[in-house]
Amino acid sequence: MLEPIHWRDRRLTIIDQTLLPLECTEIELNTAEAVWEAIKSLRVRGAPAIGCTAAFGVLVGMRDALDGSFEQARDAASAAADYLATSRPTAVNLFWALDRMRAVIDDVDPSAGVSGLFERLEREAVAIFEEDSERCRAIGENGAHLIQPGSGVLTHCNAGSLATSKYGTALSVMFSAHERGTAFRAYADETRPLLQGARLTTYELMQAGIDVTLICDNTAAQCMKEGKIDLVIVGTDRVAANGDVANKIGTYGVAVLAKAHNIPFYVAAPLSTIDPATPHGDAIPIEQRDPAEITRGFGSQTAPDGVAVYSPAFDVTPAALVTGIITEHGILTPPYIESIARVMAGATA
Amino acid sequence: MLEPIHWRDRRLTIIDQTLLPLECTEIELNTAEAVWEAIKSLRVRGAPAIGCTAAFGVLVGMRDALDGSFEQARDAASAAADYLATSRPTAVNLFWALDRMRAVIDDVDPSAGVSGLFERLEREAVAIFEEDSERCRAIGENGAHLIQPGSGVLTHCNAGSLATSKYGTALSVMFSAHERGTAFRAYADETRPLLQGARLTTYELMQAGIDVTLICDNTAAQCMKEGKIDLVIVGTDRVAANGDVANKIGTYGVAVLAKAHNIPFYVAAPLSTIDPATPHGDAIPIEQRDPAEITRGFGSQTAPDGVAVYSPAFDVTPAALVTGIITEHGILTPPYIESIARVMAGATA
Repeated sequence: MLEPIHWRDRRLTIIDQTLLPLECTEIELNTAEAVWEAIKSLRVRGAPAIGCTAAFGVLVGMRDALDGSFEQARDAASAAADYLATSRPTAVNLFWALDRMRAVIDDVDPSAGVSGLFERLEREAVAIFEEDSERCRAIGENGAHLIQPGSGVLTHCNAGSLATSKYGTALSVMFSAHERGTAFRAYADETRPLLQGARLTTYELMQAGIDVTLICDNTAAQCMKEGKIDLVIVGTDRVAANGDVANKIGTYGVAVLAKAHNIPFYVAAPLSTIDPATPHGDAIPIEQRDPAEITRGFGSQTAPDGVAVYSPAFDVTPAALVTGIITEHGILTPPYIESIARVMAGATA
Repeated sequence: MLEPIHWRDRRLTIIDQTLLPLECTEIELNTAEAVWEAIKSLRVRGAPAIGCTAAFGVLVGMRDALDGSFEQARDAASAAADYLATSRPTAVNLFWALDRMRAVIDDVDPSAGVSGLFERLEREAVAIFEEDSERCRAIGENGAHLIQPGSGVLTHCNAGSLATSKYGTALSVMFSAHERGTAFRAYADETRPLLQGARLTTYELMQAGIDVTLICDNTAAQCMKEGKIDLVIVGTDRVAANGDVANKIGTYGVAVLAKAHNIPFYVAAPLSTIDPATPHGDAIPIEQRDPAEITRGFGSQTAPDGVAVYSPAFDVTPAALVTGIITEHGILTPPYIESIARVMAGATA
């Protein structure tokens, strides 16, 4: 099981994901600038992983001020939080994690001293990390029974431990099933244009000793037709109140194909990914990615100069195609408008 | 309109397709060895284009023997035909074209002399070329009305002029519609792993002045959902007697998605691609491609060492998903078992 982020003896190390799958190298981030750069340049990626890294980054950023006054240490922590928030301006988890750290900064009484402030902040960062791990672990446990011995399980993109504190979401289900001794075969869509499936998902599953086969995105249909796939599990970036699911481009196509082949299609997601303020999928804005990712991917130019490119980062899978949403509070089933409202009310109660 | 093969003043030139889309360079093939190498290394590709090139290659191969005896010239032509047949052992069109050339070699009387032999062979090679062009042109004319003004037309892989003598099959329909003044938008799947859509289809359509947008294979579903696609037209490698269609991996998925979005799915194919001896798609063997095309495509390693890969070269689209087959004899419609039998009987009558 890969652990992308470590906080040990007050030192922050991460797996440099830009080197995967060729090298699995841990690098220490010993300044706020190094943390910022690691987030910016995708050495650490995946919304929960970014949030955890930034929280520890506040501790890294105040380290030089630990020998000074309480005010100096507090200002250093606060400045680090403000600075780290600029690393990935669209990452909701980043802001959420830094807001939790800021609340602690504001809450600690000067009488606690510098070491008291640091300890409270360290406790908060560790809590952010461990709560995420527990949620991911619970998702895996709640979904593991869906994977039957001998099944083929398809996933798209990377919803693994590398994207979270540990375990991941969609891959957590596979890790839990594997831990329980269920022998199954995973299939990973390579996931164009950035190949997260080829680069990261296969790597994580191989590390865990899970039998995984890499396929091009356009081969999923053929695998389904041949009976190789019994189940699809994907992650998600946002779930609307009605159960519509935004995820990496290509997910919607996989869901349509699964439906056509009578294959269950599950989404694994912590409740934090469900946004009750988004009524349905059409309300989720879809950003366009840089055409060069498609025309000049991986070193060579492979399309004519000036070709028009359509490259949405995400697509939205309608709730009607989703068999269930595997959360840390169990598996939600249709009608989602009711099951989501119920679980969100319970979770916040 | 690109013309991949030229026979002019007894000289054979081809567009070196390995340089596309960055460079469109014509190279002369002035020995049988050069023709063999060009076919082997995909400088010329696409079943009809390979057949035409090999036919002209017989003429190139006998050139050194033109100053000798009839027997020497005949033996040189015959040796060239045997040699060129080894360039792509699985290419049916290659054997078919060379068999036509061999029949002429066997038929010409020594009294015709060396120049008579050369002229008869040249006439045959030109006929092979022109018959292919006429068939492709007729396919385009027969399908052009399917493209309505303002429509979006999706294609997968490259079934263009580069794969034939001229015009292509699926793209011939687009070229004909464009010539008739129909304004439409083409969408080209990039077509992993070898990116024929990104490299060749976009290039050909741009050269012809057709509005084309490149998408990743996994984006076709989203384009359909957004209403961007009104029609799918693809080529094929083989059509079975019941209308099942073998084509580049990913075609089957596109057909399933088209069906789910109520979008017509057409296959463009000369009758020579229909094989009455293949009863249905399950009888078509599907070769596996080299995993390195996926794990080390275009210069960089993008998947872990030793990862398992499943990479079928083709898939089979069941006849039930095919709205029509656009041939040089008109558009065949279901039930294909009848329409195919009828057109094949007529074509051979």
